[in-house]
Amino acid sequence: MARRRKFRIARRTPPGAPPGVITADPRSPRPAITLMAYGPGGEDDFIEKPCSGPDELAPLMRGRAVTWVNVDGLGDAEVIRRIGELFGIHPLALEDIVNTYQRPKVEPYGEQVFIVWREVGLRSGELHTEQFSMVLGPNFVVSFQETAGDALDPVRGRIRKGGGRIRTRGADYLAYALLDAVVDSYYPVLEAMGERLEQLEDVMIDRPTRADAARLHDVKRDLLTLRRGIWPAREALAALSREGAPRITDETRVYLRDCLDHAVQIIDLVETYREIGSDLMDLYLSSVSFRLNEVMKLLTMVGTIFIPLTFLAGVYGMNFDTGAGPLSMPELRQPWGYAAFWIICLVIAAALMIVYRRLGWLGDGPARRRSPGGARAGGPRDHRAGAAGG
Amino acid sequence: MARRRKFRIARRTPPGAPPGVITADPRSPRPAITLMAYGPGGEDDFIEKPCSGPDELAPLMRGRAVTWVNVDGLGDAEVIRRIGELFGIHPLALEDIVNTYQRPKVEPYGEQVFIVWREVGLRSGELHTEQFSMVLGPNFVVSFQETAGDALDPVRGRIRKGGGRIRTRGADYLAYALLDAVVDSYYPVLEAMGERLEQLEDVMIDRPTRADAARLHDVKRDLLTLRRGIWPAREALAALSREGAPRITDETRVYLRDCLDHAVQIIDLVETYREIGSDLMDLYLSSVSFRLNEVMKLLTMVGTIFIPLTFLAGVYGMNFDTGAGPLSMPELRQPWGYAAFWIICLVIAAALMIVYRRLGWLGDGPARRRSPGGARAGGPRDHRAGAAGG
Amino acid sequence: MARRRKFRIARRTPPGAPPGVITADPRSPRPAITLMAYGPGGEDDFIEKPCSGPDELAPLMRGRAVTWVNVDGLGDAEVIRRIGELFGIHPLALEDIVNTYQRPKVEPYGEQVFIVWREVGLRSGELHTEQFSMVLGPNFVVSFQETAGDALDPVRGRIRKGGGRIRTRGADYLAYALLDAVVDSYYPVLEAMGERLEQLEDVMIDRPTRADAARLHDVKRDLLTLRRGIWPAREALAALSREGAPRITDETRVYLRDCLDHAVQIIDLVETYREIGSDLMDLYLSSVSFRLNEVMKLLTMVGTIFIPLTFLAGVYGMNFDTGAGPLSMPELRQPWGYAAFWIICLVIAAALMIVYRRLGWLGDGPARRRSPGGARAGGPRDHRAGAAGG
Amino acid sequence: MARRRKFRIARRTPPGAPPGVITADPRSPRPAITLMAYGPGGEDDFIEKPCSGPDELAPLMRGRAVTWVNVDGLGDAEVIRRIGELFGIHPLALEDIVNTYQRPKVEPYGEQVFIVWREVGLRSGELHTEQFSMVLGPNFVVSFQETAGDALDPVRGRIRKGGGRIRTRGADYLAYALLDAVVDSYYPVLEAMGERLEQLEDVMIDRPTRADAARLHDVKRDLLTLRRGIWPAREALAALSREGAPRITDETRVYLRDCLDHAVQIIDLVETYREIGSDLMDLYLSSVSFRLNEVMKLLTMVGTIFIPLTFLAGVYGMNFDTGAGPLSMPELRQPWGYAAFWIICLVIAAALMIVYRRLGWLGDGPARRRSPGGARAGGPRDHRAGAAGG
Amino acid sequence: MARRRKFRIARRTPPGAPPGVITADPRSPRPAITLMAYGPGGEDDFIEKPCSGPDELAPLMRGRAVTWVNVDGLGDAEVIRRIGELFGIHPLALEDIVNTYQRPKVEPYGEQVFIVWREVGLRSGELHTEQFSMVLGPNFVVSFQETAGDALDPVRGRIRKGGGRIRTRGADYLAYALLDAVVDSYYPVLEAMGERLEQLEDVMIDRPTRADAARLHDVKRDLLTLRRGIWPAREALAALSREGAPRITDETRVYLRDCLDHAVQIIDLVETYREIGSDLMDLYLSSVSFRLNEVMKLLTMVGTIFIPLTFLAGVYGMNFDTGAGPLSMPELRQPWGYAAFWIICLVIAAALMIVYRRLGWLGDGPARRRSPGGARAGGPRDHRAGAAGG
Repeated sequence: MARRRKFRIARRTPPGAPPGVITADPRSPRPAITLMAYGPGGEDDFIEKPCSGPDELAPLMRGRAVTWVNVDGLGDAEVIRRIGELFGIHPLALEDIVNTYQRPKVEPYGEQVFIVWREVGLRSGELHTEQFSMVLGPNFVVSFQETAGDALDPVRGRIRKGGGRIRTRGADYLAYALLDAVVDSYYPVLEAMGERLEQLEDVMIDRPTRADAARLHDVKRDLLTLRRGIWPAREALAALSREGAPRITDETRVYLRDCLDHAVQIIDLVETYREIGSDLMDLYLSSVSFRLNEVMKLLTMVGTIFIPLTFLAGVYGMNFDTGAGPLSMPELRQPWGYAAFWIICLVIAAALMIVYRRLGWLGDGPARRRSPGGARAGGPRDHRAGAAGG
Repeated sequence: MARRRKFRIARRTPPGAPPGVITADPRSPRPAITLMAYGPGGEDDFIEKPCSGPDELAPLMRGRAVTWVNVDGLGDAEVIRRIGELFGIHPLALEDIVNTYQRPKVEPYGEQVFIVWREVGLRSGELHTEQFSMVLGPNFVVSFQETAGDALDPVRGRIRKGGGRIRTRGADYLAYALLDAVVDSYYPVLEAMGERLEQLEDVMIDRPTRADAARLHDVKRDLLTLRRGIWPAREALAALSREGAPRITDETRVYLRDCLDHAVQIIDLVETYREIGSDLMDLYLSSVSFRLNEVMKLLTMVGTIFIPLTFLAGVYGMNFDTGAGPLSMPELRQPWGYAAFWIICLVIAAALMIVYRRLGWLGDGPARRRSPGGARAGGPRDHRAGAAGG
Repeated sequence: MARRRKFRIARRTPPGAPPGVITADPRSPRPAITLMAYGPGGEDDFIEKPCSGPDELAPLMRGRAVTWVNVDGLGDAEVIRRIGELFGIHPLALEDIVNTYQRPKVEPYGEQVFIVWREVGLRSGELHTEQFSMVLGPNFVVSFQETAGDALDPVRGRIRKGGGRIRTRGADYLAYALLDAVVDSYYPVLEAMGERLEQLEDVMIDRPTRADAARLHDVKRDLLTLRRGIWPAREALAALSREGAPRITDETRVYLRDCLDHAVQIIDLVETYREIGSDLMDLYLSSVSFRLNEVMKLLTMVGTIFIPLTFLAGVYGMNFDTGAGPLSMPELRQPWGYAAFWIICLVIAAALMIVYRRLGWLGDGPARRRSPGGARAGGPRDHRAGAAGG
Repeated sequence: MARRRKFRIARRTPPGAPPGVITADPRSPRPAITLMAYGPGGEDDFIEKPCSGPDELAPLMRGRAVTWVNVDGLGDAEVIRRIGELFGIHPLALEDIVNTYQRPKVEPYGEQVFIVWREVGLRSGELHTEQFSMVLGPNFVVSFQETAGDALDPVRGRIRKGGGRIRTRGADYLAYALLDAVVDSYYPVLEAMGERLEQLEDVMIDRPTRADAARLHDVKRDLLTLRRGIWPAREALAALSREGAPRITDETRVYLRDCLDHAVQIIDLVETYREIGSDLMDLYLSSVSFRLNEVMKLLTMVGTIFIPLTFLAGVYGMNFDTGAGPLSMPELRQPWGYAAFWIICLVIAAALMIVYRRLGWLGDGPARRRSPGGARAGGPRDHRAGAAGG
Repeated sequence: MARRRKFRIARRTPPGAPPGVITADPRSPRPAITLMAYGPGGEDDFIEKPCSGPDELAPLMRGRAVTWVNVDGLGDAEVIRRIGELFGIHPLALEDIVNTYQRPKVEPYGEQVFIVWREVGLRSGELHTEQFSMVLGPNFVVSFQETAGDALDPVRGRIRKGGGRIRTRGADYLAYALLDAVVDSYYPVLEAMGERLEQLEDVMIDRPTRADAARLHDVKRDLLTLRRGIWPAREALAALSREGAPRITDETRVYLRDCLDHAVQIIDLVETYREIGSDLMDLYLSSVSFRLNEVMKLLTMVGTIFIPLTFLAGVYGMNFDTGAGPLSMPELRQPWGYAAFWIICLVIAAALMIVYRRLGWLGDGPARRRSPGGARAGGPRDHRAGAAGG
């Protein structure tokens, strides 16, 4: 059964290459460019348009308060390079955009702020992560995704609807909204991880299989991936929401602080889940050991009872000549001999059974768990409260 | 046996939603609003009144030094929103109030201080946590609880009685009193955890069952929950009790420092309990291994004694024709043959028993523990002292 | 066997009570008050007097440079309260004095410095800890102990003798001397812990029993208790010995720095012992596993040798009719049949024994440890040096 | 099988020797000196020349903007010393250059900056590390490698080609380019480690052997080596890219920051791999325990079924005289006796088989793993994304 | 076999004693005092003289630029006290000198700097540590060793030779030279630890014994001791090499920074070794578990094959009366019965052997390790490089 390859990092730039080299990933889809431009002026002040190439962008941006150019797919180095020229993006930033294994970070490049983030999601039940990068300029945001994901759709919807705050604010608020949407993409993934851990917790005590250990290992590794994505994001958000961060207005700062709170919450949950994961591995090991105990107790009970009895039966199956003398197996000739044999056997077996019962070997069966009783199951309300706190 | 769901976080706001959206939890009870308003003027200067809606609040507050509005239950978004409008609470704070999985924090919003806390308690012997949030304004405190708990009752009692300090001080002292009551809610829970750990400690060395491992796992997970609640509370308290914290007077600061001390103490205990929990899991694993040793020693002793003897009995049960020649089982024809067989068996068994006794296999029974003697049990006074230090 | 209750904290103040409430522990002895007052003026300038109540104190203090009031036992709230009034002790400090589960700390209250510490000792070989608290005023020290311990006796002796530095210095030096005596109380306890760990180390490799695991667990838990007492003491001492600490003169600061050094040393030892304790638990587990290996090897050797042989004996014990045909157990009729059987048995057994010897199963006995030889045992001097460094 | 010696450090300077002593490693190759000198003036302004000795260097350097002297091999103390004199390198720096076990560091020595780094690579599939040291002066860089590796070749190529940035910048940019090339040498090594971990992950769940544990241990140890090389490199890079670092221009600083980012990424990967390595060791232990369970279940099933049956067969193989009385093995004389024996045997066996099936012992075979189904295998794109994120 | 006592600390000062009490260790040798005094004036300006008592020192010191008084042995409190008086050493420093369990530290006492350090060495293959203390005054260094070790001999040699830097510099450079010699004493010890770990690494995978576990435990404990000595030494060196450290000139500072580098390197190695030690303990446990698996597989294979066959043989050894009816053991009367029995036995055995081969139980023998082939063994150069990096 082939498992997914998870560890290899795909650095496309060869080691020692000069900085700023942009190499496209041939397996990545070709870039699909979409432009949204808006201002506080209502519906007349709003355009949304997919563009076939970077050259179409410049005229559309003119006169708008905020322009958002989103690029899905990094499969064409030339297109990325021309977008970079158009918006004056630093070559090192462009290199980071196409090398999609970056750590989340925020970097000022002159007038612009370059932000790399990691977006997560579940595809067919498996953790999927991709790089989200963004350049925040004075009146524009250029964002890059590896594939056309749906994490940004709510932001698009809010811009289209035009009712809320977003249309009346600057590019920094748009950048915040995009970051917030990316951070929010961790919640459903964490909920799925939590659910898997709950299922594993149920199973680890009673009857864990090797597949459960493998699934627990998968969850632990996925949590490591989440952690690698969100820890540096916290640092980056803290830098952005600090006073004096470039391109960020005071009004947006309070929202970034809220987003930072979410990142801290996510880290908290990831760390808690990781501790629970470790505890579950301990529990698994202890369950396996405990079951081995049970198995060996059974064998030992059967063995210690029947091995001596079999010896006894073997003794009276010996062919010593009963006629050779009075000491030569006289028991065999007694009319009560056979009955006595059975009585001895039963006495030995019963005595050992009593000993084992006293030692608790008989009652401590594999499936019995002291039930804490019905008091344990609270109402559904109780559950939610526990969930929020747990 | 279904176990409680503990891990899933119940984020009601959909990912990517605009900030400040308030969605009520349909399972939460409808808000029950109570107002207490008081001043230094004695009994005339005191009102306590349950209100059917937010609109009743405004007239009651007029002219009082301090007003405390407490809301139990978050099941109606409209009510929360109107209370927010009435007191000018920031939309992001309101969003945090209804999303009851917040990390404890203190956040200034202009003139107000928004505080989120986590209250803990035992319901039917299970850990229950819920969110306690509070907005501290110039002359009012608005507090929100998920359900009508009893943690705040002592504060209500102190206000009603009117004898102590509380009526003569400002809203910041009331906020302190509420925080202190919430922090105090950790003590009985910790005492219960300590008791469970003590019981498990007794059991883990002697005869642990799988149910004990499960209970230990539950305690460890509950301690994680407590830790997630109290660690950030410490940070928040440290921020509040620092000089220059908004809305906090110097007189109240000394009390907040005392409350911070309690939080640090609780953290200390939680961390100590967690280490004891880990040690107990090790002890459990070692006990299980040790018992396996005992079980296998027993099987090995019985096996190594009787398996060779059974072979010997099997040998003399063979049907070689004793008449075929002088080497063909001559023993069977000797009058002393049978007796010699028994003697050989007993000698082998006795020799092995002596070896096993020398190896310590016989004396190292499953239940023997070297007793440290009566010296160990001190007087009851001794116990309390140890408890306070342990 | 009932074990000591160690975890429960005995908080006497009910949750949510107003701050500053003083509740005496009914199990604590009634306070015994002793006064020592002295100045640089030699023997005339020295009084030592046990007092029956707080009211006797005031006249005795007059005109002395330094007064030390020591209170042993906290069983009477009224007495504590009156001492508090007499010396102007802050109610929060008084509350901490009677709630004897405080973390060590140093807190300035106006003119006074309030210090809480944790004193340790061995009573009947068990770790005993109690709270030591102290209020340092301009010309007095009021100290409180839970029981009349002997940790402070050397300080009393030094004051009585009057020869050294102590009589000529201020109250801050007395406070230092008391703290130093309390910190010194950790050394004999640590020495006892070290001795227990050494004994366990000897035993864990060779033949550990379950009682050893229990004793190791006890040591680890006691080390946790010590750690909880000394870590915050270090912080507190660092705060006291910092320049600008209230009520501490520069001359005393150098001595406090020395006391801080001791605390750091104690922490160092506690942490080292804890790591050794963890290593010993690993060693115990590995010893138990290793012994299981030994046990199972023995059973496997006996089993694999005799089980096939027993089968063979069983074969020739079968009752196939030897007259039924030439293929029907012809061996039984041969004169060499029985001898051949024995030869086959011996060959099989010998071959397996050789295999097991090659695998090292026979020589790797339970008690053999490669001795590092006499070179290991250095002279007594060598031991001490190792001890100081280890 | 002899394993590589990895732990011993080869300090050539004897303990207590005066500082600045330069002792060559006799096993190291003799130094091979190459000079590259260039300036912004195009091809006329470029020399590349291997030199037979240090004395040839001085004339070649004259009038060039930047001179790079590279020394491969440290086997001749005299040559190193003369290069040191020529460039005015501090004796302590020279001592560090020949003692090739230095921690990565950056040290200012007056006008010069001395940088020690650790270069890694794979030789015959094994991790190989060597020291790279460099002295950055006003217009020169002198670099030292233990052996003539190929990590610096891309930089040489970029200088020779002359097209990019490198020829137009100063010595500090050259130093950056060299450091970047050395940092980049970690990527292929990490990719190989990741691949090994992936292979081990596949194998650890299903059927790990002791060789797999050994290989995992090797990977973990190699990761420790990488960590020791890259952690201090990060600190050093952070120091270099800080404002005010000596000899570094602002233009180069932005590139150093990019290089620092790479170092942080590498640390991130190393730490993640180390955690995965620890998890895999746990998984290995749990797999071994689980398989033991399987093995023992099999033995227990066979044993508990056949041991009692063998006893029964033994009973009817006893030679009690059937003629001695009516109770003396009457079964043997019944025509249905033998058939009844077989029926009893089959009933017992079948009953036990049903019990074991109920307990899940039969179905929980060693190789069955719940397959997560085809949904798990995403497309190749999915893999890359996961790799970048994982 | 008695093991060395390592844990007990030998505090000679009784708890609660006044500070500055000097108690000699009766087991320590009597102090042997040696004086070296020198200046920049060549051989005339140099004296080396062993002194019988402190009183001889004063005249010898006059007019020399630097005087070094070295005291080996602390067995006479009076001598130590008089040396203290002679050089004006603070009583607390003297107390630390004779209480030889100090943590390494640097403490300014007025004009002087007091330095405590921990010297390590191997005596008869065992780790030996002792305290090295030093007082650095304006023109003198007084150093104290517990025993006359040889760590300082290289420094003596350098002073005697007079060629290098040491004679022309001040007392601070001498202090540096002594500290550097003491720090250098860790290298050979670490090399020995590394060698032991390498040996254990070889053995832990293949066939570890309990003695190996004990040796690993000893190495881990010795590494703890080294760590306790070198960690605080780093802090102390960092404090000394900071600008503004008392009594240290700028020229000496650069050398102290080099010495600090060595301490950091040593810490790095100690921590790496500790991690390798932990990994080896895991490896040991996994090897023990794996071997148990092998042992149990063997027993299970033999058992599952022969136990059923023995039952079958037992069946045909039953004495049912073949004449009682046609169903009463008719097989016994068939001429092919015996041959059929053997065929059945062989078929069962062969079938099970095939199953076990398929499960990999036969091939996965205890000694087979997949050899990584000759590619693994690099040249000697390769080893050294690996060693320096590993």
